[in-house]
Amino acid sequence: MSADLPLALTMGDACGVGPEILARAFARSALPGAGYVVGDAAVMRRAARLVAPTEGGIDLPVALIESPSDAAHVPPRCVPVWCPPGLPAGLSELPLGRVDARAGAAAALCIRAAVAQVREGHAAALVTAPIHKEALAAAGEPYPGHTELLQAESAAGPVRMMLANDELKTVLVSIHVSLRNAIAAVTREAVLETLRIAHRALRDFGIAAPRIAVAGLNPHAGEGGLFGDEELHAIAPAIADARAEGIDASGPHPPDTVFMRARRGAFDAVVAMYHDQGLIPVKYLGVEQGVNVTLGLPFVRTSPDHGTAFDIAGSGRADPSSLIAAARMARRLSSR
Amino acid sequence: MSADLPLALTMGDACGVGPEILARAFARSALPGAGYVVGDAAVMRRAARLVAPTEGGIDLPVALIESPSDAAHVPPRCVPVWCPPGLPAGLSELPLGRVDARAGAAAALCIRAAVAQVREGHAAALVTAPIHKEALAAAGEPYPGHTELLQAESAAGPVRMMLANDELKTVLVSIHVSLRNAIAAVTREAVLETLRIAHRALRDFGIAAPRIAVAGLNPHAGEGGLFGDEELHAIAPAIADARAEGIDASGPHPPDTVFMRARRGAFDAVVAMYHDQGLIPVKYLGVEQGVNVTLGLPFVRTSPDHGTAFDIAGSGRADPSSLIAAARMARRLSSR
Repeated sequence: MSADLPLALTMGDACGVGPEILARAFARSALPGAGYVVGDAAVMRRAARLVAPTEGGIDLPVALIESPSDAAHVPPRCVPVWCPPGLPAGLSELPLGRVDARAGAAAALCIRAAVAQVREGHAAALVTAPIHKEALAAAGEPYPGHTELLQAESAAGPVRMMLANDELKTVLVSIHVSLRNAIAAVTREAVLETLRIAHRALRDFGIAAPRIAVAGLNPHAGEGGLFGDEELHAIAPAIADARAEGIDASGPHPPDTVFMRARRGAFDAVVAMYHDQGLIPVKYLGVEQGVNVTLGLPFVRTSPDHGTAFDIAGSGRADPSSLIAAARMARRLSSR
Repeated sequence: MSADLPLALTMGDACGVGPEILARAFARSALPGAGYVVGDAAVMRRAARLVAPTEGGIDLPVALIESPSDAAHVPPRCVPVWCPPGLPAGLSELPLGRVDARAGAAAALCIRAAVAQVREGHAAALVTAPIHKEALAAAGEPYPGHTELLQAESAAGPVRMMLANDELKTVLVSIHVSLRNAIAAVTREAVLETLRIAHRALRDFGIAAPRIAVAGLNPHAGEGGLFGDEELHAIAPAIADARAEGIDASGPHPPDTVFMRARRGAFDAVVAMYHDQGLIPVKYLGVEQGVNVTLGLPFVRTSPDHGTAFDIAGSGRADPSSLIAAARMARRLSSR
C-alpha cells in the first residue's frame, strides 16, 4: 500500500542547492515511483530554469498540486509541488548562497507540513533536501538540524542518525554537540539504546541477524584503561547488555581500523561514539552516494549526506546523486 | 653518502609479526638498497622457517654481522642480523602471540641500539617493526609507543606522528592519550608547532609550497562556536600565526569532509586534532600501504602502520607490504 503512495520531498533552504537537486532529479526522472516537492512553486520554477542548461535544455514545468495523491498524475518530467499554507512571500527573490531568516522559516514550515502528510498516511516517506543551521536559528528555530526537529515534531522516543553508503553503515551515539559533550554522552544507557535502534533498523534493511561492531571512544579503544576508561565503564557493559538481549554486538573495537574492517565485510554496521568518528569514513570515498537515515522515528526519513553548499548554489553544478540515493532508500525502507 | 648506508630495521616484539614480515621482505628482496635487522639471530631463524612455506619454500639463511657496514656484503636473500649486547636469552623459545616482558625488554634494547647506530652515522635511517605496549610496560618501560621512546631517546624537541599512504598524509597534534586529554592538548601553541613540523616535513618530501589543511576539533568545525569553541580560541589563531610565518595553512575545516577533499587533491596534507581523526581515513582503504613517519627527530624514522597482530603471529599470514613501504619511504627521505 505505501508502495503506491508518493514520497514527500521537502525543498530545504530556498537559498541552497536543495531546489536545484530536486529539479535535476525530476529532470532525469530518477525518483523511484511518484514523489512531490513540499515547497514554494516560484522557488522550484527558478531552480528548474537554473538546471535547464545542464540538463539538455529541458523545459521543466512546475505543477501546483492540491493533494499528495495528485503527484502520481502529473506528466513525466513535470515537478509536482504542494505548497503548505503560510509560506513567506518573495522566497524566489532571495539571493542564492546567503543566510536568510525567511528561507529558514520556510524550510521548517515545509518539514512540519511534510511530516504531517506522512503521518496522516498521504505520503510513503519523508526525504529532506538540505537546510542551513544559521538560517534556521535566524528564524527562531531551536533545533540545530533535521534530526532534532523531527524527533521533537513526532514526539518520538530516542532517535539516532545512520549514515550509509554501499560499503558502510554507521549509527551515531550523538551528533550535533561539541566533542567534549559527545564524550559525556557516551553512557552505558546511550550506547545500549543505540545498539537496540541499530539492530531494529538493520533488520528493517532486510538483514536477519545483523553483526554490529561497536567502536571505542579512545585511541586503541583505551588500551585496557591506559588511554581513557569509557570503554571499561560504559561501552563494554552496554555491549554485554545488548548481547544479553540477543543482539550480535561486538567490541569495543579500536576506532582506527573498525570501519575498514566493516567495509571489507566483517560487520553489517558500526556504532560510532561521535559525529566525526562515524562520518569521516562514510564520506572519505566521496559524498555522492551517502544517505542519512533517521532511525527511531515512527516513519521513514532519509536525506542526502551533504549540506546547502551555499558556495555553489545557483552555479548549476550541484550533484543530485545523494538525493536520488536517499529517495531510493526511502522507497525501499517504506515498502517493506 | 647516506644512500650508501644500510637501513637499520628493528625486529620489534619477538612474539609478534615483526620478525616474520622482516623475513618475508628479505625473502622477496623487496628492501631498497642494503638493510640489516637489529635483533636476535635465533628469533630471525625461527621467522625464516615460519615464512618459508609461503615464500616458495625458500631457504633463508641468517647471517650474524659484526657491524652495519657488513650488511651490504651478505649474499642476496640472506638476512643480516646485528645483535645488540645484552639481549635476554631464550627469546626464540617464547610462545608467539603472547605478552612477555622479555620480548618487551628486547624490543626496547634493539630500538635504543639502532638509534645509536643511525645517530653515529652507521645507518641511513631507522625502520621499526611493531612492538607491543603491554610487553613494553611489563618490562618497566615508561613509554606507550615508539614515538614517545624515540623522542626521549634522542632528546629531540617536539615530535609529531605522520601517517601517509599514496592518497593521504595526516599529521597528528596528539597520539596516545585519552580523547578527553586529546581535547585538552588542542592549544594554539600545539597546533602551531604541528603546522611548523608538518610544513618542514612536506618540504623534505619534495613539495616546494605545501598546502596544509587543518581539521577542526568539533563537528562542522564548531559551527561558529555552536558546538565547541576550540576552533575560535586555539585552532584559528594558530592558523593565523602559521600563515604569518609563510606557511600555507587553511581551516579549520569540517572534519568529516576535509580528508576526502585532501584525497581528491585539494591539499597536500591534513593536520588532525587527535589520533583517530587522522588514522580512520588513512586506514579506511586498507592498512597495507600506510606508513608511519616520526617528524621532528634528528634522523629519519618510519614504521608500518599496523601492530604486532598477535592473533596471526606464527600463522604465516602476515603481510609485509606496509613494512616494505616504510623502508622505501625511509630510503627516499634519507637520500635527500
